[in-house]
Amino acid sequence: MPQTKTLKELADYLGGVVKGDETCRVNGLAPLEAAGPDKVTFLANPRYAAKVAETGAGAVLMAPGCDNYGRNVIEVANPYLAFAKLLTLFYVQPQPPLGVLPEACLGNNVSLGNDITIHPGVVIGDNVTIGDRCVVHPGAVVYSGVTIGDDTVVHANAVIRERCRIGNRCVIQPGAVIGSDGFGYAPDGRGWYRIPQIGIVVLEDDVEIGANTTIDRAALEVTLIRRGTKIDNLVQIAHNCQIGEDGMICSQVGISGSSKIGNHVTLAGQVGVVGHITIGDNVMVGAKSGVPNSLEANAGYSGYPIQPHKEWLKSMAVLAKLP
Amino acid sequence: MPQTKTLKELADYLGGVVKGDETCRVNGLAPLEAAGPDKVTFLANPRYAAKVAETGAGAVLMAPGCDNYGRNVIEVANPYLAFAKLLTLFYVQPQPPLGVLPEACLGNNVSLGNDITIHPGVVIGDNVTIGDRCVVHPGAVVYSGVTIGDDTVVHANAVIRERCRIGNRCVIQPGAVIGSDGFGYAPDGRGWYRIPQIGIVVLEDDVEIGANTTIDRAALEVTLIRRGTKIDNLVQIAHNCQIGEDGMICSQVGISGSSKIGNHVTLAGQVGVVGHITIGDNVMVGAKSGVPNSLEANAGYSGYPIQPHKEWLKSMAVLAKLP
Amino acid sequence: MPQTKTLKELADYLGGVVKGDETCRVNGLAPLEAAGPDKVTFLANPRYAAKVAETGAGAVLMAPGCDNYGRNVIEVANPYLAFAKLLTLFYVQPQPPLGVLPEACLGNNVSLGNDITIHPGVVIGDNVTIGDRCVVHPGAVVYSGVTIGDDTVVHANAVIRERCRIGNRCVIQPGAVIGSDGFGYAPDGRGWYRIPQIGIVVLEDDVEIGANTTIDRAALEVTLIRRGTKIDNLVQIAHNCQIGEDGMICSQVGISGSSKIGNHVTLAGQVGVVGHITIGDNVMVGAKSGVPNSLEANAGYSGYPIQPHKEWLKSMAVLAKLP
Repeated sequence: MPQTKTLKELADYLGGVVKGDETCRVNGLAPLEAAGPDKVTFLANPRYAAKVAETGAGAVLMAPGCDNYGRNVIEVANPYLAFAKLLTLFYVQPQPPLGVLPEACLGNNVSLGNDITIHPGVVIGDNVTIGDRCVVHPGAVVYSGVTIGDDTVVHANAVIRERCRIGNRCVIQPGAVIGSDGFGYAPDGRGWYRIPQIGIVVLEDDVEIGANTTIDRAALEVTLIRRGTKIDNLVQIAHNCQIGEDGMICSQVGISGSSKIGNHVTLAGQVGVVGHITIGDNVMVGAKSGVPNSLEANAGYSGYPIQPHKEWLKSMAVLAKLP
Repeated sequence: MPQTKTLKELADYLGGVVKGDETCRVNGLAPLEAAGPDKVTFLANPRYAAKVAETGAGAVLMAPGCDNYGRNVIEVANPYLAFAKLLTLFYVQPQPPLGVLPEACLGNNVSLGNDITIHPGVVIGDNVTIGDRCVVHPGAVVYSGVTIGDDTVVHANAVIRERCRIGNRCVIQPGAVIGSDGFGYAPDGRGWYRIPQIGIVVLEDDVEIGANTTIDRAALEVTLIRRGTKIDNLVQIAHNCQIGEDGMICSQVGISGSSKIGNHVTLAGQVGVVGHITIGDNVMVGAKSGVPNSLEANAGYSGYPIQPHKEWLKSMAVLAKLP
Repeated sequence: MPQTKTLKELADYLGGVVKGDETCRVNGLAPLEAAGPDKVTFLANPRYAAKVAETGAGAVLMAPGCDNYGRNVIEVANPYLAFAKLLTLFYVQPQPPLGVLPEACLGNNVSLGNDITIHPGVVIGDNVTIGDRCVVHPGAVVYSGVTIGDDTVVHANAVIRERCRIGNRCVIQPGAVIGSDGFGYAPDGRGWYRIPQIGIVVLEDDVEIGANTTIDRAALEVTLIRRGTKIDNLVQIAHNCQIGEDGMICSQVGISGSSKIGNHVTLAGQVGVVGHITIGDNVMVGAKSGVPNSLEANAGYSGYPIQPHKEWLKSMAVLAKLP
């Protein structure tokens, strides 16, 4: 049975204001088009304001000053954030911890925190530390010497290789690989001599890693993903890279070895970044762009090879008209 | 011991006609260059017709009216399809069902159909339904609440997350991830607030998913792959996408959130599609193209940014001549 | 306790010459900036020669004739290769073999070499042969009929499908999939008819495969990766491809079906190659390029569509100036 809340309760929770019937009760969220009278919906983009007139929702989350078309409204500064917070409130219930289930396989000298769940089919090596309230899903493999902080979730069949360090509140989606060997070979006159990759990967707190993404361990020291950065599915981060705080690395991006990405950087889908360069803080790179050299901070770029975003738009317009 | 068939038997099976020795016996298929007298080969592309003169094959599948160079021939309207059907006839034997092998791990209230095989190392959560004649290979993980239809094969180490629904006759290659969390975060003034992804993924009947491909669950409702669509390896389908029927999504394609793809659409390798757009029915998009906006039906497109295919060819020709 | 070596011992091991204190003892390696007096560092790129003056390292590996700034030096013809060899000497200790651990699951008629380690959670099918000194990490799945040579390492959750053949001294990183079904369908007038993929994948000796990379089995015969070729993470090799010896295939490259790549070819990150073409020996293709047709040997290419590398640089320069 879903919990129900009054609009007054929700507005208090969000720091917002009800316009309309404060006592109206709702039990969840739904999109504008699909919401019934027991659901809250939200208007994130003013472009769709006219849809508010037609929604069957019990209430609409919107920014102050929008037309409410006679609907119950909870006014909040950031409707999209409010929507996310209500989703968490209504739908994210902590699972009761199950401990170490019998079909899991733990090595020697494994230190487990309180209230953890280690699912069947998990294999954990020797000398591993896992913090409080972590959940490790079936088939995940944690090699020896790994440290995982508190409240971290490792999904099914993810792999964390030896000695890597994972922070608090991280989420690792299914199939992600943390700490695979960096791609380093020295030509020896006949073929390729493998360079041992003896470094590790460090994920700081609140980092999230997408499904089947791969993050290679450093040759000597650390491949580092800083606090709060989110990485989507099928991304490749090569050895010795450093990604700053609160970054947004979209799907199928590839970053070559030893590149340093600043804080609050967004790399859109399928972007490629060469090795040994630096991208400044607050940079945004458009989808499918190729980054062949360092980029100054606080700017947007697009194209292959990359240009400042506005110049690229001009180049593309000219190119299309050439014939 | 392989079974043998006469050309007459094969022609009857295929709805074709033998030209030559109907009683000739063959036991399998091989390429034009490698086939011996006990093998059937095929000519799909008339460009290679001259190779028929040199093949050692016992018979050649070809379209009516081609020169047979004195060989035994089975004439069929679609030699490539006939080849595929004979491959299935000669080489695809159903494995006898093995039931639930002892090293598999099943949750509570799991409903299994008849004649299934659940291999060692499989982990299945609570309240899962799996239909008749399904095979789940080692290491595959099926989270709680998942439904799988009849005759579906889930290969090793694939992951199907909670509550997703898989149709009949689907094939999921190794390492594919169905139902990972969509990449959704709301800026909260300091960093990124995770938006719970409470929707699911639905694969309709006859959908096939490539190795290590990832399909994210919807934020609220459904990420939907319609009947008959085939998806290659390492493809990313983001949350809330809808892919139409009988599509062909080639390797390393990425489709951003909430985009809608029509029926019979082909996206060639490494294509990228932005979010919140619509691609019409029967569209073909060339390899490595970037799709920044909606595309009208029944046309071909290429480039980055995309153009109608013929205009793109002109632009590229001009560009190459500029220097 | 790390082992220590004198510079004389290291120079003898490398075939180099000490300039400075031959009796100086070191116990490992570190980057130029971070090395202390008990570490060896290396100067691979003469551009950074001035950093030698500031390093705290006990000794520097460098090419003959460089300024040593008064430091102990081991002169070697190839400092980068020497660095790799010393990393192996100091840091790569063979793990003692553990045999078949009890939580592994082996099929019938499995032949295991000497001094192997089969970790918990591994599932091996029937009629599999694994050579001496192999290590198979947790969760890896080896289907029936597979052959693996000596000294090969299969990392966690990698999958090797039925009948594929893996050579000696191969390394397969976590999550890689060898032998998934090729993406082959014949149109049957309504939808797509699956073409059974009855061939296999062969990896020759000294091949290395990156994390979550996928290599599809051939339709009829063999997808072949020749001796010494190294493949990075998230690469797609389609059915029936042949890759020559000592190649370097970087991350997120995609190669479509039946293409033949020569020896000593480098494909940089995110390159796409269409099907049914041939790339000659010693070709280098720049990052993100699209290869739509065959390429002659001994040349460099870049762009989408591809041009000889120098012409592409000119085209891009002109394009940027057009507006």
